[in-house]
Amino acid sequence: MGDSVVQTGAPRFARPPPGRRAGGQPGAVARAAARSRRGPVGGTFSSTRTSSDPRQEATIAITLRDVAELAGVSIKTVSEVVNRTGRVAPATTARVEEAVARLGYRPNLSARRLRSGRAGAIGLVVPELGTSGYFAELAELVVSQAARRGMAVLIEETEGVREREREALLGPRRSQLDGMLLNALRLTDDDLPDVPDGFPVVLLGERQVGGFDRVAFDNAAAARLATAHLLDAGARRILVVGGDPAVSDSATQRLAGHRAALEAAGRPAAGAMHVVTTQWDHESGLAAVARALAAGTDFDAVLGLNDALAIGAVRGLLDAGRRTPQDVLVAGIDGLHTTGFTTPRLTTVDARRPDIVARALALLLARIAGGDDEGGLVELEPALVVRESTTRTS
Amino acid sequence: MGDSVVQTGAPRFARPPPGRRAGGQPGAVARAAARSRRGPVGGTFSSTRTSSDPRQEATIAITLRDVAELAGVSIKTVSEVVNRTGRVAPATTARVEEAVARLGYRPNLSARRLRSGRAGAIGLVVPELGTSGYFAELAELVVSQAARRGMAVLIEETEGVREREREALLGPRRSQLDGMLLNALRLTDDDLPDVPDGFPVVLLGERQVGGFDRVAFDNAAAARLATAHLLDAGARRILVVGGDPAVSDSATQRLAGHRAALEAAGRPAAGAMHVVTTQWDHESGLAAVARALAAGTDFDAVLGLNDALAIGAVRGLLDAGRRTPQDVLVAGIDGLHTTGFTTPRLTTVDARRPDIVARALALLLARIAGGDDEGGLVELEPALVVRESTTRTS
Repeated sequence: MGDSVVQTGAPRFARPPPGRRAGGQPGAVARAAARSRRGPVGGTFSSTRTSSDPRQEATIAITLRDVAELAGVSIKTVSEVVNRTGRVAPATTARVEEAVARLGYRPNLSARRLRSGRAGAIGLVVPELGTSGYFAELAELVVSQAARRGMAVLIEETEGVREREREALLGPRRSQLDGMLLNALRLTDDDLPDVPDGFPVVLLGERQVGGFDRVAFDNAAAARLATAHLLDAGARRILVVGGDPAVSDSATQRLAGHRAALEAAGRPAAGAMHVVTTQWDHESGLAAVARALAAGTDFDAVLGLNDALAIGAVRGLLDAGRRTPQDVLVAGIDGLHTTGFTTPRLTTVDARRPDIVARALALLLARIAGGDDEGGLVELEPALVVRESTTRTS
Repeated sequence: MGDSVVQTGAPRFARPPPGRRAGGQPGAVARAAARSRRGPVGGTFSSTRTSSDPRQEATIAITLRDVAELAGVSIKTVSEVVNRTGRVAPATTARVEEAVARLGYRPNLSARRLRSGRAGAIGLVVPELGTSGYFAELAELVVSQAARRGMAVLIEETEGVREREREALLGPRRSQLDGMLLNALRLTDDDLPDVPDGFPVVLLGERQVGGFDRVAFDNAAAARLATAHLLDAGARRILVVGGDPAVSDSATQRLAGHRAALEAAGRPAAGAMHVVTTQWDHESGLAAVARALAAGTDFDAVLGLNDALAIGAVRGLLDAGRRTPQDVLVAGIDGLHTTGFTTPRLTTVDARRPDIVARALALLLARIAGGDDEGGLVELEPALVVRESTTRTS
């Protein structure tokens, strides 16, 4: 869309930004985003006022004293109005606010954070951002959706190590954050007595700890959908690739869903074939099918427990002369963007990341705003996306 | 590696973490990382001391007064020792430090940040994290390498909008950061008079503003390498896909490199064929070749100005019945991880992200530590990675 063929060496001068790799909508949307992010930062009329003119960044010399003089009140009164800590008469408040607005006074946000606990930033704590693609796409959505609400995102990787999950949740960095989205793999309720009351946390993913709100998609249902589809498409023996149920809740739930689908179809789930991989990446998927083929394992379909594994499996099969879907059907789970452009295009289960992020952010922002609503568990139903890798047309 | 085929329904209990999609090395490496990240946070013996026992997180009631009483000194003296702001006699300092250690006193890090400017976090400001994959892989490297140095990473997206680049660099959020890695598309020297002296910034990418250090790879050389390789592989007419030189420095430099390679090979660079796309993603690559084919454009090779475009182009060609590499050679630029697992595997130019991130972080941390070294420009040479998409074997 919007492309055009230019048969000349001269550069073409055309449309507006974004430039290099800029992924978002330029123009109005970007401006609206830039506008909307001004609001929450600092949280009061005054910072909104000054931020609306970027030049004010330079006028840091304006002090409480200047405001006090213009408003004809004491510095203490200005401080009480600006920080909403005192009980100042409405008329006086109005006078101070007008002086703040006229001078473009910007309160010291670091100092304010100390008092109000508002940082203008949330944390995103995930096991990794790496090559599986899942958390990278999740993080992108969190960063872009948070930006629209005026929040920056502090990202921490835990590698699924309990101590690091604990440190992210309980450590000093929390003081820089208004709240946290946390995908925990190892944290337990034993870690929670130390969580100060009221620090807003929304959990992402399978693991529930404490009474935090949690947003997840149904992993067992995802594997059930994919498995049932493979069986419908003619698979007799499905090789499951990836994930160690001894250490991964995701793997456990997805394997359970896979077995449930086998049983529902009258297949002996006890004979399920599973290649355990420690990683969830392309390499592991490729290596897993290579090993299975070398071992003479008989299979005519592969369920990758995520898309990166499935993409690697397709490639490993082809390296061994087995075509997808002609010789072996392959399906993944996650709905990564790139699966729509692979050869063959990959059948997968959409994990609905945009919905997960939207729901999780809404919950978190409500908690930050002090809402006491029922939160609890939001579990989104996955959706099967059938593509070429499970469609035999020839 | 480490995979094994299990022909039973029983879950296999085996190796250590990581669990779901955890990408890093578990065990010793993770522990070392967790250990090393303790050091720099807070920056003094006392926070190191308390962090080493996570239980101390709960004992927030310990105050300067408690330390002062135990040490038999004034609160002011404790404050001077803890914050290293005063000139306290060594013997007294030792007494205070011992009291701090015994009580597990944890200084208020927010308050300390105000005084010392150390946040334990750096900013990463990029146009987007989206589906091109480049910045997602870059961000993952920054987050994981920074974690090893005890730093969290605050990520902001600018969509390449100058005002948002400006706000990221100059806005209040900076007070939460020790320094910043900034990939700017639109910022100019006019924006810099407002940058307070000494805030550590290292630029990533093509755009130089002010006297900041910058780490980049040579975009023109990358396109030269890819183009020369396509010509060597037999390409007669190369279609370049992606990037608008009117708005993108990357596109400008990569097109210049492309033309230089054409000229070096005695081809008329004035006849270069370029499909301008506003985005740098899979969809745009696919749409671009579809348009070129529909327009009857004659080409036997495609240079995607990045890998996502090239992957989309391969797919668009196949949708039109043109195989890669048999009918059309395709090469990309960036060296995305996934290019090693596509069908066909994609020839690309390695942008050396791990080296870029390592150099940029080293420069930034040196600046944060107050180093006055010569920084300047670090430009890394790209490396061609030849794979199936440009290798005609049949």
